[in-house]
Amino acid sequence: MEGKGRILTGHRPTGPRHLGHLVGTLENWARLQDDHECFFLIADLHVLTTDYTHPQRIRSSIAEVLMDWLAAGLDPERSTFVLQSAVREHAELALLFSMLITVSRLERNPAYKEQVRELGLTASLGLLSYPVLQVADILVYKADTVPVGEDQLPHVEITREIARRFNSLYGQTFPEPKSLLSHVPRLPGIDGRTMHTSYSNTIPLFASPAEIERAVMSMITDPARIHPTEPGHPEVCTIFAYHQAFNREMTPQIEEDCRRGEMGCVQCKCNLAKLLREQLEPFRRIRQELAACPSYLWDILEEGTARARPIAQTTMEEVREKMGLSK
Amino acid sequence: MEGKGRILTGHRPTGPRHLGHLVGTLENWARLQDDHECFFLIADLHVLTTDYTHPQRIRSSIAEVLMDWLAAGLDPERSTFVLQSAVREHAELALLFSMLITVSRLERNPAYKEQVRELGLTASLGLLSYPVLQVADILVYKADTVPVGEDQLPHVEITREIARRFNSLYGQTFPEPKSLLSHVPRLPGIDGRTMHTSYSNTIPLFASPAEIERAVMSMITDPARIHPTEPGHPEVCTIFAYHQAFNREMTPQIEEDCRRGEMGCVQCKCNLAKLLREQLEPFRRIRQELAACPSYLWDILEEGTARARPIAQTTMEEVREKMGLSK
Repeated sequence: MEGKGRILTGHRPTGPRHLGHLVGTLENWARLQDDHECFFLIADLHVLTTDYTHPQRIRSSIAEVLMDWLAAGLDPERSTFVLQSAVREHAELALLFSMLITVSRLERNPAYKEQVRELGLTASLGLLSYPVLQVADILVYKADTVPVGEDQLPHVEITREIARRFNSLYGQTFPEPKSLLSHVPRLPGIDGRTMHTSYSNTIPLFASPAEIERAVMSMITDPARIHPTEPGHPEVCTIFAYHQAFNREMTPQIEEDCRRGEMGCVQCKCNLAKLLREQLEPFRRIRQELAACPSYLWDILEEGTARARPIAQTTMEEVREKMGLSK
Repeated sequence: MEGKGRILTGHRPTGPRHLGHLVGTLENWARLQDDHECFFLIADLHVLTTDYTHPQRIRSSIAEVLMDWLAAGLDPERSTFVLQSAVREHAELALLFSMLITVSRLERNPAYKEQVRELGLTASLGLLSYPVLQVADILVYKADTVPVGEDQLPHVEITREIARRFNSLYGQTFPEPKSLLSHVPRLPGIDGRTMHTSYSNTIPLFASPAEIERAVMSMITDPARIHPTEPGHPEVCTIFAYHQAFNREMTPQIEEDCRRGEMGCVQCKCNLAKLLREQLEPFRRIRQELAACPSYLWDILEEGTARARPIAQTTMEEVREKMGLSK
């Protein structure tokens, strides 16, 4: 692992991953394993910031996320899988960092502002503190690289600020992690909006052939095109966005045929459905195998967590010492 | 310990205790040990909410507080002394509780509002979260009784709210602790204002005879009284407030003599100084003995903390299980 950058990233266990995760995130993470030491975090404490009323769901969601991660190529032989609530140092470091950041700084965080618009006065302290726990997740392992989508950039900025503040108060301790921005275009949901679990417009990574068929057939194409022989506008077509993500080589040909009115939407959908069925078949198979041996999943998580914990403990010993707290 | 109420209370290690602590708090705590199981917390994490820039001070302040506690009769044979940062479960439980309380509820907390008036935009997340950590301190030991001054009543109210919320979500787990309001009148500082370290108007518990003399002689008496033979107004006199606290039996006589102009302020001050010297002599002696063996202090704290930790761990196992988190 010498000389490699250390990455910390992860997901909240909120259920199965979907194609948006695969294209935007998981493919990227899988590649990063080649030249980084990767920590993949299952952030179950972060789930509580928006849903703490379904404790029985968390465990099954953890297994779902793990299965999808493994199916997408995250590799427990090369990378470390960590369960957040099992490493108590995350919570402790978050508490200490809460002293080093102002309430007003957190209230300016765009993600919080957006959620406050929805939740109003019921926004929890946990929601306001969300980024601080994330900072602790990253810095407790002294990760120097954080792969993010654009919406997460402000959180990495907060991480850098807290690292800088801590270092200036107590001496050099933490790296100021850099963002690794993924430039993959967002995959639209089947209704054309951003793919998001809460919009019910996702295609799960382990969708069955019938589910794929149904999802693709219901996708919105160019609404101005009535007859298959009319010229189409691929730039507004959901199907075309999927061809771009999953069928890159054929994209120029598809675009040309569409604009010339030589390829009808139904045919184009059929082609995409076939392609997705083929491409997702391996995920589905691996996932079925994994679902048959849940203890394997928990073993991976336990092993990874056991590997991560001493690193977190060493960091906390250093932090406590520097802040004048008990060993 | 069967059948006794369990008390959690404590101090932030911010330096030596003063006479205001003794009269308002420590005498009361010492008495409570007779019929309660007491946990006395040295809240070093809470120090960080207002001062995180002097890590080297915390350890010496912990020793100061401990010495004064012991000198005032807190008894490690009967009670448990706990160092907050040494029991990681406090931080973890505080994080979980942060999900169960809204930002707006905490912003309405009078102590926070007062500090925001002073600090403005620089109020830290730690300061806003102060009461939530206090709730964790109390509930991690399932304490059912919290001795407080009036200014702390809102914090016990928040404790009851969070306990109630947790119990309603996850089943009966925590008691809703009751406040034990101490009705001792506040001892004024030597300038007549509330006695407070930050006002530099305190008399330390271990003041030397010369310090006591100096402090008492500088106290403000009835400003309307010029000559010792004029009638005085004890109700506005700082010296009289001290007689009420430390010389209760003689108070009616002193009041009468003062109102009749039969006792001059200087004489009255001399009497008080003599009395305080005598009454504080034992504290001073015990404290000097304790200062000579610091390892004894740390042993007490270590033993108490070791006794407290398994209780906190048991609570957290129950909490994690109920919230769906890792064991």
